[in-house]
Amino acid sequence: MKAVILLSGGMDSYTAAAIARDSGYDLYVLTVWYGQRHAQEIAAARRVAQALGVKAHRELTVDLASLGGSALLGDGDIPKGGPDPGIIPATYVPARNTVLLSLALAWAEVLGAFDIFIGVNALDYSGYPDCRPEYIQAFEQMASYATKAGVEGGRFHIHAPLVSLTKAEIVKRGIALGLDYGLTHSCYDPQLDGRPCGQCDSCVLRARGFAEAGVKDPLL
Amino acid sequence: MKAVILLSGGMDSYTAAAIARDSGYDLYVLTVWYGQRHAQEIAAARRVAQALGVKAHRELTVDLASLGGSALLGDGDIPKGGPDPGIIPATYVPARNTVLLSLALAWAEVLGAFDIFIGVNALDYSGYPDCRPEYIQAFEQMASYATKAGVEGGRFHIHAPLVSLTKAEIVKRGIALGLDYGLTHSCYDPQLDGRPCGQCDSCVLRARGFAEAGVKDPLL
Repeated sequence: MKAVILLSGGMDSYTAAAIARDSGYDLYVLTVWYGQRHAQEIAAARRVAQALGVKAHRELTVDLASLGGSALLGDGDIPKGGPDPGIIPATYVPARNTVLLSLALAWAEVLGAFDIFIGVNALDYSGYPDCRPEYIQAFEQMASYATKAGVEGGRFHIHAPLVSLTKAEIVKRGIALGLDYGLTHSCYDPQLDGRPCGQCDSCVLRARGFAEAGVKDPLL
Repeated sequence: MKAVILLSGGMDSYTAAAIARDSGYDLYVLTVWYGQRHAQEIAAARRVAQALGVKAHRELTVDLASLGGSALLGDGDIPKGGPDPGIIPATYVPARNTVLLSLALAWAEVLGAFDIFIGVNALDYSGYPDCRPEYIQAFEQMASYATKAGVEGGRFHIHAPLVSLTKAEIVKRGIALGLDYGLTHSCYDPQLDGRPCGQCDSCVLRARGFAEAGVKDPLL
């Protein structure tokens, strides 16, 4: 059975893809370049897709950076020191996951697939509105109205297998599935030589996750 | 008050934009190039945006054609002779309006706008799932879960002012608003010199609309 997987090159989407594979799905992975700052992510997404043994890897580009509104897209500084609970960080990208899921939905319908995986996580990034289960449900409902496949009775399922896991649980799950997190890239603001900054929210959460899981991060 | 308008260069989105302007909105128009076949649309969208006196016109490109699945994107022949009621035409583009609306939502959130206009019409294209009022409502609900602005209590409104109009009613409305439909482009399959084919669904519906409205189409 086919599933479309949104893959960024980070550890969460890598783990979500591995969970899909472990559930028996053939992986059709989609990477969307929406104006992120760093080319390391491109290399990481390709490495990860290859390691997963995917059936197909598509890359689409859509220039959300031209619309502005996010530190992740070059509009202001990347915050350092770890996220504040309950506050939406400056790295929030307006409607990002809706753009990503709509493109995944388009490809799924072309493929005749009804399963889409996204590596969102509601615990660490409690501030991101489009990482919450109620958002995922609302998108799923909309998807069946939006499509020919839905009108014909098909029901799309947006899988968010990490949504209620801690970062440490994600690490443990991935290690159990044999993943090599050395292939991934997480940092929002890497150094000139490509090494992670160690201070952005993404680095802080990653370090906390590996520490709590009792596992050494292969990137460090 | 700001509104984001999805503008294709066709007569429906031109009319929807004019209705928004007539309602007092400042127009922020967004054109999405998703792999349509003909460059005439690009010229038409820019002409129409200029004629409307918009505050800003953004163009985004996302290559849905690379995913396939639609005659409109070069995958198979454009059907001729007018749409069959109740059948989804081969020109359906999987999840197209969801991709378009998600990009409009992203820009609206950056602008601090809550109003989005789309020129969908449920009567002529009864077969397109993402032109129906129930789809528009489902997207609207999802949008408030998807965004920071929604979490903070804002409610997005997806306006589809043409959804229940006939093509003739759209023509009459546009003429009353002073629109010049000679600026627009509708044909799915234009001739080499750029003139409309007169036979694709879009040409057939346009001709029927002008005829029923008792108005000469300035393109012919």
